[in-house]
Amino acid sequence: MHLLEKLEAMNRVQTGEDLHRFAARLYPICRSITGEGIRKTLGMIQEQIPLQLVEVASGTPVFDWVVPKEWNIRDAYIKVPGGDRVVDFQRSNLHVLNYSSPIRATMPLSALRPHLFSLPEKPEWIPYRTSYYKENWGFCLSHNQMQALEDREYEVCIDSSLEEGHLTYGECILPGRSAEEVLISCHACHPSLANDNLSGLAVATFLARLLSGDDLQYTYRFLFIPGTIGAIAWLARNQETADAIRHGLVLTCLGDPGGFHYKKSRRGDAEIDRAAAHVLAHHAEAAEILDFSPYGYDERQYCSPGFNLPVGCLMRSVWGTFPEYHTSADNLEFIRPAALAESLRICTAILDVLETNQTYRSLNPYCEPQLGKRNLYPAGGGEAIQREISARLWVMNLCDGEHSLLDIAQRSGLPFSMIRDAAELLHASGLLEAVPGPRGGESDHHEEFREDVHPGR
Amino acid sequence: MHLLEKLEAMNRVQTGEDLHRFAARLYPICRSITGEGIRKTLGMIQEQIPLQLVEVASGTPVFDWVVPKEWNIRDAYIKVPGGDRVVDFQRSNLHVLNYSSPIRATMPLSALRPHLFSLPEKPEWIPYRTSYYKENWGFCLSHNQMQALEDREYEVCIDSSLEEGHLTYGECILPGRSAEEVLISCHACHPSLANDNLSGLAVATFLARLLSGDDLQYTYRFLFIPGTIGAIAWLARNQETADAIRHGLVLTCLGDPGGFHYKKSRRGDAEIDRAAAHVLAHHAEAAEILDFSPYGYDERQYCSPGFNLPVGCLMRSVWGTFPEYHTSADNLEFIRPAALAESLRICTAILDVLETNQTYRSLNPYCEPQLGKRNLYPAGGGEAIQREISARLWVMNLCDGEHSLLDIAQRSGLPFSMIRDAAELLHASGLLEAVPGPRGGESDHHEEFREDVHPGR
Amino acid sequence: MHLLEKLEAMNRVQTGEDLHRFAARLYPICRSITGEGIRKTLGMIQEQIPLQLVEVASGTPVFDWVVPKEWNIRDAYIKVPGGDRVVDFQRSNLHVLNYSSPIRATMPLSALRPHLFSLPEKPEWIPYRTSYYKENWGFCLSHNQMQALEDREYEVCIDSSLEEGHLTYGECILPGRSAEEVLISCHACHPSLANDNLSGLAVATFLARLLSGDDLQYTYRFLFIPGTIGAIAWLARNQETADAIRHGLVLTCLGDPGGFHYKKSRRGDAEIDRAAAHVLAHHAEAAEILDFSPYGYDERQYCSPGFNLPVGCLMRSVWGTFPEYHTSADNLEFIRPAALAESLRICTAILDVLETNQTYRSLNPYCEPQLGKRNLYPAGGGEAIQREISARLWVMNLCDGEHSLLDIAQRSGLPFSMIRDAAELLHASGLLEAVPGPRGGESDHHEEFREDVHPGR
Repeated sequence: MHLLEKLEAMNRVQTGEDLHRFAARLYPICRSITGEGIRKTLGMIQEQIPLQLVEVASGTPVFDWVVPKEWNIRDAYIKVPGGDRVVDFQRSNLHVLNYSSPIRATMPLSALRPHLFSLPEKPEWIPYRTSYYKENWGFCLSHNQMQALEDREYEVCIDSSLEEGHLTYGECILPGRSAEEVLISCHACHPSLANDNLSGLAVATFLARLLSGDDLQYTYRFLFIPGTIGAIAWLARNQETADAIRHGLVLTCLGDPGGFHYKKSRRGDAEIDRAAAHVLAHHAEAAEILDFSPYGYDERQYCSPGFNLPVGCLMRSVWGTFPEYHTSADNLEFIRPAALAESLRICTAILDVLETNQTYRSLNPYCEPQLGKRNLYPAGGGEAIQREISARLWVMNLCDGEHSLLDIAQRSGLPFSMIRDAAELLHASGLLEAVPGPRGGESDHHEEFREDVHPGR
Repeated sequence: MHLLEKLEAMNRVQTGEDLHRFAARLYPICRSITGEGIRKTLGMIQEQIPLQLVEVASGTPVFDWVVPKEWNIRDAYIKVPGGDRVVDFQRSNLHVLNYSSPIRATMPLSALRPHLFSLPEKPEWIPYRTSYYKENWGFCLSHNQMQALEDREYEVCIDSSLEEGHLTYGECILPGRSAEEVLISCHACHPSLANDNLSGLAVATFLARLLSGDDLQYTYRFLFIPGTIGAIAWLARNQETADAIRHGLVLTCLGDPGGFHYKKSRRGDAEIDRAAAHVLAHHAEAAEILDFSPYGYDERQYCSPGFNLPVGCLMRSVWGTFPEYHTSADNLEFIRPAALAESLRICTAILDVLETNQTYRSLNPYCEPQLGKRNLYPAGGGEAIQREISARLWVMNLCDGEHSLLDIAQRSGLPFSMIRDAAELLHASGLLEAVPGPRGGESDHHEEFREDVHPGR
Repeated sequence: MHLLEKLEAMNRVQTGEDLHRFAARLYPICRSITGEGIRKTLGMIQEQIPLQLVEVASGTPVFDWVVPKEWNIRDAYIKVPGGDRVVDFQRSNLHVLNYSSPIRATMPLSALRPHLFSLPEKPEWIPYRTSYYKENWGFCLSHNQMQALEDREYEVCIDSSLEEGHLTYGECILPGRSAEEVLISCHACHPSLANDNLSGLAVATFLARLLSGDDLQYTYRFLFIPGTIGAIAWLARNQETADAIRHGLVLTCLGDPGGFHYKKSRRGDAEIDRAAAHVLAHHAEAAEILDFSPYGYDERQYCSPGFNLPVGCLMRSVWGTFPEYHTSADNLEFIRPAALAESLRICTAILDVLETNQTYRSLNPYCEPQLGKRNLYPAGGGEAIQREISARLWVMNLCDGEHSLLDIAQRSGLPFSMIRDAAELLHASGLLEAVPGPRGGESDHHEEFREDVHPGR
């Protein structure tokens, strides 16, 4: 059974609720790029899929960067001396500037003010701010809270630690028939933010679970990593391994109700780019394909010129374009069970294309084969059957050893699954043979790259 | 004189009427993919042009297919016992399911019904149906006739034969200076259907007559063949010969009043594709260029991957898109003399491009030649002369041995004939030399293919 | 300081007035393709920039052409015998058919008429006409003047001479670090016509003055030449030299208030074509990019197939599309100081791209460099700073030794200057190295051509 069929056999409403429930369990944790928050998060993913946790010591050089000290936090607040907390980390972990160094002091509002961040244009929302690489401390609060502060002394406490420790990431490998890899990567370093973090974690976790135990063509590598520094650390430790990556997807912002966006890899014409565009054209109501740019998520690192991996990024609404982005409004109400389930379906459909894309050669290249005598040309029939016959004719016409099934789907305008099903039927009828070697077909211009990994096969 | 000038010297109204009259003579014959109907049709074409009839015996394997038994029919009807014929082959040969096996029986309407075909949505029209490869018998009738049938016994007679015999096709070869060939193919297997069959036969016949006796660059091969099985049989018997085909056109549906459609060859960028698109852009009021697809007429076979010949298909209305298609309404009123004449003109203009397309090299490549001193730069003059001068400048600028005249016409936006006339004039003035070798110029990517036929030159 | 910054440091209003004043000084001179008029014009340019005057003798063969006799004129008129001049060369040098042979005669209007030219559709304007290569004489006059002529005898005088002499052109060479050249060419052969001649002369002169004394990457060659025959003569005498031309611009019609038009070189994808399109997209309000055609100005000769130089043509309104073209209405009111200044700015911006376009290779190709630790990633900041950071990320991502800065500007959509400034900063920070060799990067397909000039470096 193909991956998409396997997914579609499941109850979709149920899947959406399960995805949302998983995100909800992860929501309260105060994550950062290091520390117990991300460890706990990875532990909860480990309950779902076989995940290996990797620890990289603070101070480790990774290309141009250095793994920072480990940050942990227990509590933080601003309070009126002897009175109530007016800003309280226990109510929202966004209240603390992520990676704040510890502080415990009493100071007038004027001294506190440079350490306070709010969003005047959205006075009820708490912004999300970080200061990973420049030691600082601070509080994020709603603008209403900000304005309610009186000009007086406050007791300020951030009970955090910044010490030698580790950066932690999770890696889940699902071996396939080939050593060639598909990379699925998502960042796991944001605290209570639902779309920009948890939606990607949930979809990736469920995708790994769906693939587990399947007879896979590719080996799948799922990475749950702190953004930027995590991807850089992984690439620095796996420079050779990265060569095996044939296709990759960064997953993020997959729970909001907006339409899909696929951002192409730096190559722009990689098989993943074509597969994603094809799936979105056929499966999604509204979708937009974006050109690569060197800002966004960890595709920045995977697509840096020294690697130039074929890794794109799948999102619904694009980071920075929805007002809830990096605020407390990116919460569990902002992400929807149905949107998460549909995102999982699109991811599965894309992997389904990659798994079953293949190049065939016709064993009957001279004129059409007589489909009728093989019962492959049903007489009469409505439009559905006409499309099936069309798919068979397209496959017989273009399977010349140079066009992949994805090429044929694109040229015919028919959905990939229909072309693939036709090819499998015609293959079973002895009319086609599979062409060994690179699977991507005519549009693949990176053959020298691929050859590196073939010798071992 | 160039081909198009030769045609345009003729009376166009007269030509249209002659084409229609020829179609009208062929109309009553009950054709099929084998049998006396197609033989008689080819005989009538033979009166116009030098046509060789080829017989292929039933049972001959042709690639994945086998030449079927020969079908002939004398009479067919449904009648009330002792009464009148209610369905009568003598009134329309569409009334019989083409390739019906013989039957003579009396049966109740209930037993007859599965053998009756009508078109409820067009109650006055008789549909055209066939059953070549699955033995069956049946009648096609108007839906009004169908509904008038009473629930009673009927006498049913199909006086046909299905016996060992031959498949017949006609081949007309007009030798040119080169052994390289242009293929013109049309199907001759449909009974009384005017647009989808006779229009193509008539235009192809007149085209062959127009070309006869001319000093031709290419060798022309006209095929009048039964659809599908005829093309397959020809290709099976001429697998080597097919290599000589440099350009090809399938002609069909050329008599209706609709706009032109040119369906590109599988290659998509063959010289015939570019020539047809250019001619339609400059000569036809409204025209559409369609991408190749593996359904349609015999371009399916010529463009199968083992052959991949540069053969496109020229139509006015596309099969299946006009309601009259495959019904008794595709009759002599549906095709128009003026439409047939215009189709002949477009075909001629396309062949004119192929015949005179050529690559030249400037003998004066450094700066412009002084056209004035050669009287090639008329002073003053209106727009027509300005365009002639433009054509000369374009030719002098782009004739670098790499651009064909068709390339230059496309880049300049001027009609091919104007560019060609300029080139011939400049050649006569000693400013250009013809470049030997493949004629198509820079856009031809099939040179290895072409070299096969050059040795003999 | 980059060229454009140097220009922008100047007072723009003043520059526009200076340009217009210079055109005004040249305006009264009766220029032609040979003679004292063009010599005097070149002399006035020589007062501004270091210009070498070259004389080519009448009768010299230059490719397909021959340098004509030298033409000079002192006076010309039509008068009523014993009465006033009704057409007077002293009032407008357009009144005489340029290159008229001498005549002094009395004749009736009927004999004079074939030698008179007017514009019925613009009855107040004098047309501009020439007869360089066919000996003739004639007068151009307004249609009102034409209609006022009575049917009587007239005294006709053209006090001109057509004798063995020379064709004169001016050449200004500004040496750069490389022997590779940028060609700036404009025609200097039109009499009192402001836009179609003087605007180009003025802008080119000021451009040469702006470049003078700068540390230039390229060697600049400015040509002030008679149209057609001048370019042909220069190319005939400098066939080898022409090989050094890497980029070229023909300048004309740069003073009218219309939007810019850039006509691409015959190659269509030369670096000058891309640079001009980029600059016009970012710097000009409305601009149109035109495909090459073999009519227009001297790009016809530079782009003839034997040379095929990367030379485009920059105009505001295109010759022949504005009614004032080649009439007395193309006068000093038709060209505007602001338009001239803006044309100079666009030319400078294009040269600025050529001068500083360069290919770099990242010294930090694996993952992003940590810009923050180098103070290259300013926190916070508005949109301007965000764009600067974007430019840095684009440069780091695409500087792989294959993309030029212009390639990166095109792909990122950011202005070239922003990309170049980012690259210079990152280069200074040790993150990039310059790639030696051809500067144009990936889009340059003429490397064999370029190698010719490298050996000497």
